Amino acid sequence: MSFLALSILNFGVPLSMVCAAIGLAFAFFLIAAVTRAPSGNERMREISAAVQEGARAYLNRQVKTIVVIAVVIFILLFIFKDHSTAIGFVIGAFCSLAAGFIGMRVAVLANVRTAQAASIAQLNALRIAFNGGSVTGLLVVGLALLSVSIFYMIAAKLIGSDAAIRSLVGLALGGSLISVFARLGGGIYTKAADVGADLVGKIESGLEEDDPRNPAVIADNVGDNVGDCAGMAADVFETYAVSLVGAILAGLLTLGGNAAAIVYPFVLGGISVLGSICGILFVNVARGKPAAVLMGAVMINALISAILFWPATRSFFPGGATIDGVLRSPAQLYFASLVGLIMTPVIVALTNYYTSSHFRPVQKIAHASETGHATNIIAGLAAGQHATALPVLFIGLAILVTFHFAGLYGIAIAVMSMLSMAGVIISLDSFGPITDNAGGIAVMAHLPKEIRAVTDELDAVGNTMKAVTKGYAIASAGLAALVLFGSYVEELRAHLTSSLRLASDQFFQFSLQDPKVIVGLFIGGLLPFLFTAFSMDAVGKAAGAVVREVRRQLQVKPGILTGQDRPEYGTCVDIVTKAALREMIVPALLPLVAVVVVAKALGPVALGGVLVGTIVTGLFIAIAMTSGGAAWDNAKKFIEEGNLGGKGSFAHAAAVTGDTVGDPYKDTAGPAINPMIKVVNILAILIIPIFF
Amino acid sequence: MSFLALSILNFGVPLSMVCAAIGLAFAFFLIAAVTRAPSGNERMREISAAVQEGARAYLNRQVKTIVVIAVVIFILLFIFKDHSTAIGFVIGAFCSLAAGFIGMRVAVLANVRTAQAASIAQLNALRIAFNGGSVTGLLVVGLALLSVSIFYMIAAKLIGSDAAIRSLVGLALGGSLISVFARLGGGIYTKAADVGADLVGKIESGLEEDDPRNPAVIADNVGDNVGDCAGMAADVFETYAVSLVGAILAGLLTLGGNAAAIVYPFVLGGISVLGSICGILFVNVARGKPAAVLMGAVMINALISAILFWPATRSFFPGGATIDGVLRSPAQLYFASLVGLIMTPVIVALTNYYTSSHFRPVQKIAHASETGHATNIIAGLAAGQHATALPVLFIGLAILVTFHFAGLYGIAIAVMSMLSMAGVIISLDSFGPITDNAGGIAVMAHLPKEIRAVTDELDAVGNTMKAVTKGYAIASAGLAALVLFGSYVEELRAHLTSSLRLASDQFFQFSLQDPKVIVGLFIGGLLPFLFTAFSMDAVGKAAGAVVREVRRQLQVKPGILTGQDRPEYGTCVDIVTKAALREMIVPALLPLVAVVVVAKALGPVALGGVLVGTIVTGLFIAIAMTSGGAAWDNAKKFIEEGNLGGKGSFAHAAAVTGDTVGDPYKDTAGPAINPMIKVVNILAILIIPIFF
Repeated sequence: MSFLALSILNFGVPLSMVCAAIGLAFAFFLIAAVTRAPSGNERMREISAAVQEGARAYLNRQVKTIVVIAVVIFILLFIFKDHSTAIGFVIGAFCSLAAGFIGMRVAVLANVRTAQAASIAQLNALRIAFNGGSVTGLLVVGLALLSVSIFYMIAAKLIGSDAAIRSLVGLALGGSLISVFARLGGGIYTKAADVGADLVGKIESGLEEDDPRNPAVIADNVGDNVGDCAGMAADVFETYAVSLVGAILAGLLTLGGNAAAIVYPFVLGGISVLGSICGILFVNVARGKPAAVLMGAVMINALISAILFWPATRSFFPGGATIDGVLRSPAQLYFASLVGLIMTPVIVALTNYYTSSHFRPVQKIAHASETGHATNIIAGLAAGQHATALPVLFIGLAILVTFHFAGLYGIAIAVMSMLSMAGVIISLDSFGPITDNAGGIAVMAHLPKEIRAVTDELDAVGNTMKAVTKGYAIASAGLAALVLFGSYVEELRAHLTSSLRLASDQFFQFSLQDPKVIVGLFIGGLLPFLFTAFSMDAVGKAAGAVVREVRRQLQVKPGILTGQDRPEYGTCVDIVTKAALREMIVPALLPLVAVVVVAKALGPVALGGVLVGTIVTGLFIAIAMTSGGAAWDNAKKFIEEGNLGGKGSFAHAAAVTGDTVGDPYKDTAGPAINPMIKVVNILAILIIPIFF
Repeated sequence: MSFLALSILNFGVPLSMVCAAIGLAFAFFLIAAVTRAPSGNERMREISAAVQEGARAYLNRQVKTIVVIAVVIFILLFIFKDHSTAIGFVIGAFCSLAAGFIGMRVAVLANVRTAQAASIAQLNALRIAFNGGSVTGLLVVGLALLSVSIFYMIAAKLIGSDAAIRSLVGLALGGSLISVFARLGGGIYTKAADVGADLVGKIESGLEEDDPRNPAVIADNVGDNVGDCAGMAADVFETYAVSLVGAILAGLLTLGGNAAAIVYPFVLGGISVLGSICGILFVNVARGKPAAVLMGAVMINALISAILFWPATRSFFPGGATIDGVLRSPAQLYFASLVGLIMTPVIVALTNYYTSSHFRPVQKIAHASETGHATNIIAGLAAGQHATALPVLFIGLAILVTFHFAGLYGIAIAVMSMLSMAGVIISLDSFGPITDNAGGIAVMAHLPKEIRAVTDELDAVGNTMKAVTKGYAIASAGLAALVLFGSYVEELRAHLTSSLRLASDQFFQFSLQDPKVIVGLFIGGLLPFLFTAFSMDAVGKAAGAVVREVRRQLQVKPGILTGQDRPEYGTCVDIVTKAALREMIVPALLPLVAVVVVAKALGPVALGGVLVGTIVTGLFIAIAMTSGGAAWDNAKKFIEEGNLGGKGSFAHAAAVTGDTVGDPYKDTAGPAINPMIKVVNILAILIIPIFF
């Protein structure tokens, strides 16, 4: 390694660590600001404490379940792989779990204060909820950037840079695997409680949402925290860490000796932390419509990153870089990073079109509700499928453009640059469950109706934000997985060449003419279908258990409905906890088992087909489910705003059915596909030297 | 060409024509048998005539719409391709239309006689309905085998064998394109009328299925004939003709000089016509449970074909054949054909498990109905996705095994051998709508309840048969499309080599490492998602129009419900006809436009990705939709049999919602994917010399 390369290495990674540290410091400043806000009356604090206790109890038990599986995988990696990969796996898993706890803890802190702030002004509530989300965003991004940086710095010192980068794949697997469990477990929990509470509470007993007489109401609110907050935070940690590792790995594999290629992704991440802070500050000073203010934060982050990326690119690649035998100019590398920044608002805008009640797709579903449950469902399913078209075409365009600029590394840079904005994007995403919970607390604590109106309006904005950030998450996950697939191909070639089973000039191909590739595509394509089918079954089963428990309580203590008896919230929480943990095992293990079986039975070429097949169908199903689910939700809200007959009308009943179907779509099955397609691709890279 | 090869050519194709002629003769014998059966009372004949008139009027208008598009494509082929391909296109299109008319005509003949026979004994009704279906089966298969044979014989004489085979691709395109329109137009018609009639009739006005007071009842019955009978017949003609052409093309491209490779698929088809006749005769003499008798026919056909394929293979490939540089023994080629025969009962059994009310998947949906509409929908969606797993794994296994035996030609032989059983399979498929219509006529003509009980039981059997034959159709379509993709690759290589843009020893690759292939996979994968989204939207829109018309009639003439006023059936028929024809255009043109745009903008490699992408997601969506839809339908029937509260219960209302959602899934969007994925692949082959 030349002196110049070493000095870049010595300067770039610490720089990104400094930025991450600034982000963390700002997060602690925000925590102080949120904590200072008044936390409401006794009753509100009591409810908040009950929700927090349920969430903590669930997460603790989830950790115990996952640790068993994680220890088994750690031992396997330790024996069949190398020690540093196994240690990386533990760090990745630990940080992903920690991210989940952070997400939950901060949300519980913010929701009760948001409810209290709503009694003063909408703007105050907006800022508290957003700042709560920002804490999660900055902490998770900072954690991801720091854990990868520190692990890489230490491992590079001990075992050299190349081996350190390969061990990072272990860290990525740890993060992804935990994230699959967190998304699934949390997703099953939140939707089983939600669907179960709605089915008996709203439909059979005529109770309002969050009515404290519903025995499942605390479980429902716990669900928001363990699913939408903890699950989401673990997921984002994973997406960020994996994208960073993927970019570094692509840099190593396509730009071998160039240390700048490895440091550059760190620096992009570091710069955007600063951009995110500016975006967050903007929300705290701006005035205007909630949605416009929040979108402004995204644009400011993108703008600052776009400006700062250029000098960074110039100083890391002053003479450009040679990729696939062609010299790429600094401008070409910069353009690849710009594509990532542009993709974020593009995907956000497209998803917004398909899921906001201001546009035709959602209104079509609302109108279809007028002819009944079935036409509402048909319209929603069709809307979800329609919503895949433009995002996928833009993703395809981004692939072609960035590959043209800088090969596989170009795609990797675009993904990292897209993910670098995660800080602000998560702030938007967390905003949803925090306002949702704030509304719940307002109802349960019998706060005045005006306050509920404020939180309801923020909740609607939060719903759309949740939907658009899911579009962003799956688009970036698809691109990140493609980078991992490219790394799989390069790593396999290097392995076969070094073990002398492939001549160094021989070109290794995954050709569509090879029936093994086709069969691999089929098997890979099947995984998201089966994975989501199991997830939906799981929600159905767990929700059924909640329904039976609520019915039992209402039968044993009829006084609950009249307010004379107090429902046993604890048993519902307990039942959903057990059911969620039991039901998450099969779908979570499915991708692991599939990869190992195909590797053993059909070999590396078929496995390559599996990786791409999973990405292709996974991308479509995830977009269709998350967008379709959000569209159903907002179609219901559109009717509840007084359109087409409003609440209580025939159309409203149909829209409630659509919303309930959409729940496991958008909050369990759909988002869990993100980490799943990455687990498949990361595991494939890891097992190359073991199986082939 | 050697003398031996010529004599084989001279003997084989005429042999298959003789078999086809025997099949046609037997079909006319069956027509005579069906026609001789009593056609019921005056009222029944009147209803039957009204249905027939509506169906004929619709088909005539559908022809007029399609002809415009067909003429444009004919002119384009005539100018940019060659005359023989253009003529082939016209023949394929004409025969596909003719098949639709045959299917409709025979069904209308059989349904009224089935209703009448049900008044005597179940066995008589079963035989009449099955023989009616058999007529369609034999006529469609005979038509396909004869049209391809005759066109090939004449064209080979005029322009040589190779050019004749390439012109057959035009015939395949003609068949597929018409089939897409027929499946879509008919599918939209039948489900719009069905859903529309159910929504106002059953749900709003409390009328029974097929109540003559429902103004949409005739349109509903017309729908069964133009969708399930005419659409299905056109589809099967297409599947059979395309599989035959695909096998011949694969024979030409992988076994160049060997004339036996071209004749062999014809002979397999011819032999199985004889097997089908034996299967049909079996149903006419056997006694027992309807489902068992029908499955017996399939097994007899498979057995006879398995026995006769061996001497045929021995005499056409006495010394085996060299494929991909390896000599394959006659036994290996025979095994490839056996795989096709085995796949038929395997897929039928798997689909039966997922869609019959005797097994867990359907019962799970029924139980989920007890907690409401939404849980029914979630369970049904999950069931449809689960149903993809085993069929896809078996298809993958079949690909690997047959490719191992005889390369691409091995897959082609397996597809042809699978399709060779179409005669008997369609007999089962047509059985469904004929019994369904017979039941409708029984109710409308006020026949005694016992007769309705007989037709209801046969209808339930028919429902399962319809579901399993759809599994068979999509599995064979997926395999046939893969053969077409293989032919695309070979044809492209031949074209680029002959135009000196590719060295003859250079290996042309569609590699997953190539971003164009990935983008192609994304675009191709998108097509089935968009195609089905448009189809479902179309059903929703057209059904809405029916609902408004029925509501209008009931408002203007309140006497309709009391039986004092006669509803205007004609206006409903007219509205659905117009809506179906209008709504089918966009989805039907989507695959054509996509192929041309990708070819022009991204070139042959990306187009290869599109072809495979469409097959992968198309296979999954088609299986999920057809199996899921059938499972919903049978879950409703399971409840109506008196389980879980029976008719009128809360669970039943939820099950009706699921059934209604399943309608466009299983009868419009799902089955239309079959011809769609083939149109994409055939068109790609055709445009190679035009665009590349």
